[in-house]
Amino acid sequence: MDINMPDVVAEVTAAFQRYEAALVGNDVAALDESFWNSPHTLRYGATENLYGHAAIAAFRAARPSQGLERTLARTVITTYGRDFATANTEFQRPGNPRIGRQSQSWARMPEGWRVVAAHVSFLE
Amino acid sequence: MDINMPDVVAEVTAAFQRYEAALVGNDVAALDESFWNSPHTLRYGATENLYGHAAIAAFRAARPSQGLERTLARTVITTYGRDFATANTEFQRPGNPRIGRQSQSWARMPEGWRVVAAHVSFLE
Repeated sequence: MDINMPDVVAEVTAAFQRYEAALVGNDVAALDESFWNSPHTLRYGATENLYGHAAIAAFRAARPSQGLERTLARTVITTYGRDFATANTEFQRPGNPRIGRQSQSWARMPEGWRVVAAHVSFLE
Repeated sequence: MDINMPDVVAEVTAAFQRYEAALVGNDVAALDESFWNSPHTLRYGATENLYGHAAIAAFRAARPSQGLERTLARTVITTYGRDFATANTEFQRPGNPRIGRQSQSWARMPEGWRVVAAHVSFLE
């Protein structure tokens, strides 16, 4: 299995950055599109466990649209072959000392790169 | 991309169960073997962010060997093609009301199925 083929890393990095821009900008349509539209898709958030794209989309629709700025640190994107990748990053919100962690698994679907599973939490 | 091919799901489920048995039994060698032996491997734990297999192995070696029992709930294993999978599960320890979440990304390496990234946290 070829790890970190440059063209694949570039594709996933672009998808990761689109997701980050959508998150900070509260672009709910882009957030929904970033996640695989499947009942298999899953997102563990800091305060909720969401099963299936519909539950994740409902959560996005209801989330506050303010205070979304954050800075990333130690982002690690790794690709495995041409069709799968992991993207992990630490993050902090302005004025908040807590260290967040965001993990995503990405797969190349017919419709494009999509997050198939995600986990967000804060370091205790 | 073929999702959840039965033979692939069976392989990953067996690897997932071996990991779980190693975790509860504190079989450090088996835990170390379950994770990809690479500097790319990453594990966000509840109280630590570990980068690289060496850091993860050092953490395993130092962890307490008591109080490791836990029960799993809502385990979701999904495979994407023949070489990649995600395994997500909720867990609880006896006498502790907190809901844990464990996310793993698995890849089929030449040496077998390995966890390439993991994230463990508790619901806030």
